[in-house]
Amino acid sequence: MIAANPLSEMLSTLLDRRASGRRTAGRRRIRDDCQKLLEERAEISGLQLAADIFGQYEALDPEARIAFFEFLNEQFDIDPTTVEQLAARYRDAPSPENFRALARAAEPARQRLFRRLNEAPGATAEIVRMRQDLLALLPAHPHLGRTDHDLRHLLRSWFNRGFLVLQQVSWDSPATVLEKIIAYEAVHEIRNWDDLRRRLQPEDRRCFAFFHPSMPSEPLIFVEVALTRGVPSSIQALLSDGGDALSQTSANTAVFYSISNCQPGLAGISFGNSLIKQVARDLSRDLPNLKTFVTLSPIPGLNRWLATQGTEAADTDGAQLERLAAKYLMTAKDAHGRPLDPVARFHLGNGAMVQALHRGGDTSPRGMAQSGGVMVNYLYDLNRITQRATQFSKTNDIAASSEVKGLVRRA
Amino acid sequence: MIAANPLSEMLSTLLDRRASGRRTAGRRRIRDDCQKLLEERAEISGLQLAADIFGQYEALDPEARIAFFEFLNEQFDIDPTTVEQLAARYRDAPSPENFRALARAAEPARQRLFRRLNEAPGATAEIVRMRQDLLALLPAHPHLGRTDHDLRHLLRSWFNRGFLVLQQVSWDSPATVLEKIIAYEAVHEIRNWDDLRRRLQPEDRRCFAFFHPSMPSEPLIFVEVALTRGVPSSIQALLSDGGDALSQTSANTAVFYSISNCQPGLAGISFGNSLIKQVARDLSRDLPNLKTFVTLSPIPGLNRWLATQGTEAADTDGAQLERLAAKYLMTAKDAHGRPLDPVARFHLGNGAMVQALHRGGDTSPRGMAQSGGVMVNYLYDLNRITQRATQFSKTNDIAASSEVKGLVRRA
Amino acid sequence: MIAANPLSEMLSTLLDRRASGRRTAGRRRIRDDCQKLLEERAEISGLQLAADIFGQYEALDPEARIAFFEFLNEQFDIDPTTVEQLAARYRDAPSPENFRALARAAEPARQRLFRRLNEAPGATAEIVRMRQDLLALLPAHPHLGRTDHDLRHLLRSWFNRGFLVLQQVSWDSPATVLEKIIAYEAVHEIRNWDDLRRRLQPEDRRCFAFFHPSMPSEPLIFVEVALTRGVPSSIQALLSDGGDALSQTSANTAVFYSISNCQPGLAGISFGNSLIKQVARDLSRDLPNLKTFVTLSPIPGLNRWLATQGTEAADTDGAQLERLAAKYLMTAKDAHGRPLDPVARFHLGNGAMVQALHRGGDTSPRGMAQSGGVMVNYLYDLNRITQRATQFSKTNDIAASSEVKGLVRRA
Amino acid sequence: MIAANPLSEMLSTLLDRRASGRRTAGRRRIRDDCQKLLEERAEISGLQLAADIFGQYEALDPEARIAFFEFLNEQFDIDPTTVEQLAARYRDAPSPENFRALARAAEPARQRLFRRLNEAPGATAEIVRMRQDLLALLPAHPHLGRTDHDLRHLLRSWFNRGFLVLQQVSWDSPATVLEKIIAYEAVHEIRNWDDLRRRLQPEDRRCFAFFHPSMPSEPLIFVEVALTRGVPSSIQALLSDGGDALSQTSANTAVFYSISNCQPGLAGISFGNSLIKQVARDLSRDLPNLKTFVTLSPIPGLNRWLATQGTEAADTDGAQLERLAAKYLMTAKDAHGRPLDPVARFHLGNGAMVQALHRGGDTSPRGMAQSGGVMVNYLYDLNRITQRATQFSKTNDIAASSEVKGLVRRA
Repeated sequence: MIAANPLSEMLSTLLDRRASGRRTAGRRRIRDDCQKLLEERAEISGLQLAADIFGQYEALDPEARIAFFEFLNEQFDIDPTTVEQLAARYRDAPSPENFRALARAAEPARQRLFRRLNEAPGATAEIVRMRQDLLALLPAHPHLGRTDHDLRHLLRSWFNRGFLVLQQVSWDSPATVLEKIIAYEAVHEIRNWDDLRRRLQPEDRRCFAFFHPSMPSEPLIFVEVALTRGVPSSIQALLSDGGDALSQTSANTAVFYSISNCQPGLAGISFGNSLIKQVARDLSRDLPNLKTFVTLSPIPGLNRWLATQGTEAADTDGAQLERLAAKYLMTAKDAHGRPLDPVARFHLGNGAMVQALHRGGDTSPRGMAQSGGVMVNYLYDLNRITQRATQFSKTNDIAASSEVKGLVRRA
Repeated sequence: MIAANPLSEMLSTLLDRRASGRRTAGRRRIRDDCQKLLEERAEISGLQLAADIFGQYEALDPEARIAFFEFLNEQFDIDPTTVEQLAARYRDAPSPENFRALARAAEPARQRLFRRLNEAPGATAEIVRMRQDLLALLPAHPHLGRTDHDLRHLLRSWFNRGFLVLQQVSWDSPATVLEKIIAYEAVHEIRNWDDLRRRLQPEDRRCFAFFHPSMPSEPLIFVEVALTRGVPSSIQALLSDGGDALSQTSANTAVFYSISNCQPGLAGISFGNSLIKQVARDLSRDLPNLKTFVTLSPIPGLNRWLATQGTEAADTDGAQLERLAAKYLMTAKDAHGRPLDPVARFHLGNGAMVQALHRGGDTSPRGMAQSGGVMVNYLYDLNRITQRATQFSKTNDIAASSEVKGLVRRA
Repeated sequence: MIAANPLSEMLSTLLDRRASGRRTAGRRRIRDDCQKLLEERAEISGLQLAADIFGQYEALDPEARIAFFEFLNEQFDIDPTTVEQLAARYRDAPSPENFRALARAAEPARQRLFRRLNEAPGATAEIVRMRQDLLALLPAHPHLGRTDHDLRHLLRSWFNRGFLVLQQVSWDSPATVLEKIIAYEAVHEIRNWDDLRRRLQPEDRRCFAFFHPSMPSEPLIFVEVALTRGVPSSIQALLSDGGDALSQTSANTAVFYSISNCQPGLAGISFGNSLIKQVARDLSRDLPNLKTFVTLSPIPGLNRWLATQGTEAADTDGAQLERLAAKYLMTAKDAHGRPLDPVARFHLGNGAMVQALHRGGDTSPRGMAQSGGVMVNYLYDLNRITQRATQFSKTNDIAASSEVKGLVRRA
Repeated sequence: MIAANPLSEMLSTLLDRRASGRRTAGRRRIRDDCQKLLEERAEISGLQLAADIFGQYEALDPEARIAFFEFLNEQFDIDPTTVEQLAARYRDAPSPENFRALARAAEPARQRLFRRLNEAPGATAEIVRMRQDLLALLPAHPHLGRTDHDLRHLLRSWFNRGFLVLQQVSWDSPATVLEKIIAYEAVHEIRNWDDLRRRLQPEDRRCFAFFHPSMPSEPLIFVEVALTRGVPSSIQALLSDGGDALSQTSANTAVFYSISNCQPGLAGISFGNSLIKQVARDLSRDLPNLKTFVTLSPIPGLNRWLATQGTEAADTDGAQLERLAAKYLMTAKDAHGRPLDPVARFHLGNGAMVQALHRGGDTSPRGMAQSGGVMVNYLYDLNRITQRATQFSKTNDIAASSEVKGLVRRA
């Protein structure tokens, strides 16, 4: 019998064996088991323990989960006094032994615990879910930020760009993956499977995602692309159902019209900039007719900013709204001197430039509420993105077309 | 066009893109580039830098490599004074901010550097090779142990059991993998491709290996298995070419007759115990007729130990040699109270027991030189390995058959 | 970049290259091109011609299609006089040369034409669609049965059981395959993707299909299976949404509750009996707890037959309806002495037996209209299906449980 | 556990189930079983019977195999008298019924037998092997040509170009495939695995093969390609071990230096022309720098022809030998007016032209014995191969460069 997907099959032995932890909750037991897992030297019992711990964790009620994280935060922390002493000793005698002793003392036991937990099949996804829970608790329990720091540190190492696999998501992809695309699309909602098909199947549509080999059915982040002739100015036109698909050879432009993160548990671990640039490179190699790589992006912060300026999009005519939007993108800064608009920050940080503004670009209720319907193209010039990204990271200088600069002047 | 192997294909985009670093060596430049990579915030230039650094590293001569590791060891170390101060601050005020500051200070910059290097395609294998070089330097440059500690710490996290994939290696496997089996077999040499075929293709032979998704053509460790009727007592008989393969349904015993680590750069990061136990489980599920899981193992330390006892294998008759071998395995201990024999340590640590001794088990020059030809079966009783491994890890108690215990008494 | 499905990828070079035939219709041109294709000796121009012919065919209007089939039927037929003469010559001198001459003359040119057409990428699916069109024309144009005979002859050879691949269809299968399962389910309608998921994803549900390597996204026939404890008596209960899935180890029965042919163009080329028996064997090997293999089947002809007996299901009480259903299945015969009910014919021909009748088994409008809601279990006893199939094929004897025989006696 | 090769895995269910026929030979029994298989209506017993028949066939000694083929030839032939009568009836009344009756009578029962045999798993390869045996018998038993006609007819239909899959064979391919490349290379022997690696692994080497989905480890035909700068004139230089591989971007020429059929049982069923043209197309798409597609071919018939002209290569100086070789290729014809040289016939039939002659092109003993060491380049001009192939198939006109024409004039 053949499974349809080699990647998921690859992990099947692992996932099949996933021990369904005995779910007899009990705050006591999960703590004892964690303790035991850290001490356990024999590996095989460790695997079973790890699986049990996940089972127990799932069964914990919200109160007990807080208690569990408190426990990790307090009991599996470092001992600062020991660190202090070992740092002093290392300062005096920087031998490998003293270094090792210090390094061990400076790493909280909970990091070792998470590594041991990860040995169980399917564990990586569980740990990502654990962090999702923890992140939800942080606002009310900010001191748990210590445990979150360790989780983020580990996940950043495990989800290193070098371990991620770029895959096209198409109408030939497994339904297990596709249902997640529907669920996670964050920018322009996918209403149902037919709507999804329209974004994947036509010759002038593409979707790409990063995957981690340990979570083969879980896209981490994906970008949706439309191949067009010329740069589009309206998302409604782009997503409308009418008309034939453009043939690959006719298209000269790739439009990144939506990019969505899928794993709340991986917040703060960024892969988006790799994705969009990698996809642009791959497309440009496979379809040499593509000359322009551009986004069609929302301006989520425009209306909020207008309010601070005493204006409202609803009261402004289209031409003026475009000028104000240009001004907002180019001049409104946050406390660190970076662009106030988060989407602008993302694309400019990637090395893109502000290319053009479009009133009426997104006339959906959400688009109107965010920016009075104005959208923006960020242009990815493959020959200059590295230089622009470096420049932006150093100076926060915003690259823009002369057209956009003109709008700012006239705003 | 279709590649033969989906796993390697999976990484093809990555590997294709492997930038061939400009190999203009220069001790200066690689240092500057490492510095730059750590400071770089724009990701895409980082990828290029990382690839360049690997290229430069490859081009370094031995002297320059030592200098490079010295540089990492000294320049990218922690600052113990800062760690001391931040530990004190955290002791006084254990806030998340203070924790984060301490955690950052306590992690040497070279760990961050290796993580950034790993973002380049194909980098993981390069880093493993780097550590192989470093390990070779350690005896003469023990202070580089600090850098090795960091590398091992990272690699242990990246090669966590949860990320490894167990795969059967068969005569249907890619030649890129098979040539490595030939190269890495450490116990009973594989002389050529025909010899390899005899270990993989017959119905009563198996081979299994762990792989890491980022190094799909590189087995990390593999075990060779023979399916037999009854427990074999001689490796020559097992590997001899004559006779038909046993049918799967006739076999009642799985013999692990060779286990080899493949990556010197992963020394000290153990997967062997997982492998043998996982394979035993999988075989027992797929071939329910298999009742006995056993090794046919060398006793590498026997002759050395006999010498310390004033004896020689060559002067001892077979029956007595078996008794002495039993005594050696059961009673000769190292400074930590563990079995002196490294192979015994490995299998007993896994939860196996000493089952039987066989004079004339390995009459090859190597077998005669190591142990006067005596071999040993370690028995893996699937129902008791967890318990035995736990017991052994706590007490160093050695489980043995009554037959073996009898030999010890009569020795 | 990696496609999700190796099977479809395998054919991608082919399908990509699919020449989009110039669709300038014209009854004349397609005929000339067919003639040319048969005469063409240079292969490469043949591939182009074949692709063109498919393009032209697609563009033909219904009238022109009839004319096209008439053309194949008349112009590419055998010449019976030549066959007669060559048969006589072979009778007198049975040499290989005379045999070859006769064999060539006795095969209509249109068979050669279809083989040449098939050389174009994607052609097999096109030819299957052509036959679907032809079958629709047969009732009004029965003389085209000659061409259909040739098509069926070829397709039977190409879709030989030895070339088919059995594959599990799961929620991990490509959407391109899954949408066809939705479209082709013929027995119990699948309303949407959520409904489909309920038939594929739970631990106690399975679906298997035969595929042909040349049509990797097109299931040929599929069977849906439920794993249950005990034999179910109602399809509504089986398909209802409530409740947890049964674990694999708890199930002791596999229920084939729906089997659907997908390709109208392959009518008369049966794979169903292979499928159900192959799946039963595979399941019994993978899940040794499964002891009973049984269908839950409609009785499509019951009400029609009752009418011929002057009765109506609506006027009959449940117990009596079961008795009449048993009588119908066991005693109502067609002109060849085989069971009148087509579903009974299918399963009994496979070697199954009539196991039990269930009033209220299918209370859907369709179930009520067909059989007053009565359903039937056919039992596949793996140890006896070969013997029963052979017996049935010779004598038309119907195997039944004593319970069912009792119902017949009391009817 | 994951098999390395999805294609072979795809068929694993089939191959695993391959019944090992009871090998109790007996000429009687195999005949009875064949008879029974044809009559059997119940499919499942048929599968077992078919597997048994293959087992019995394997066990037959050479004498008994001849008797078996005689049996097929005589007992499962057509009845010419019946064919005659049914042809007459169809002539008088061309109804579908009469057509069907005639078609059935005109097809020997052995064709139906082979189709039923093919239903067993792994049967296609067995039937190909059967034909290999039969072909070896034909010279001494020419009347068996009737059975061979039927086998070839069936195999031509089953191995239709539309069912074949083009695959790159690389150092990543399974050893099961690679060992066949070593075994089947017919032109320039591959001495061992290292030699094979040199033909597959370097960046400037390629190998492509056609596969049939039912025989996934068996290449049908393969072509070896070298990427070069400029057109090579010597096979020794091409296959020599020295020097670095050319980078893909430096190469401007693809040289087809060896093409080998693998399956003697498929003799007379040609795929070679498709292969070379398909590979040229794919390479030209993937590596746009490639401008020239050319062979470096032997001239197997040159010395034989020189002898008929009263000359010997050994007595001729190099320049004159080139002229004579050109004359031989361009003017020596067989009885049908086609080129006498079989390799010339093959490439010219494909649409290639004679491009250049090279004395000292193959100085191996074989090359010297065949053609005094002269080799030839046939040029595949992708824009003109269709036209040239058509022209050649009509007129036998040989396209040649002006250089080659000049040689002929001066010969």
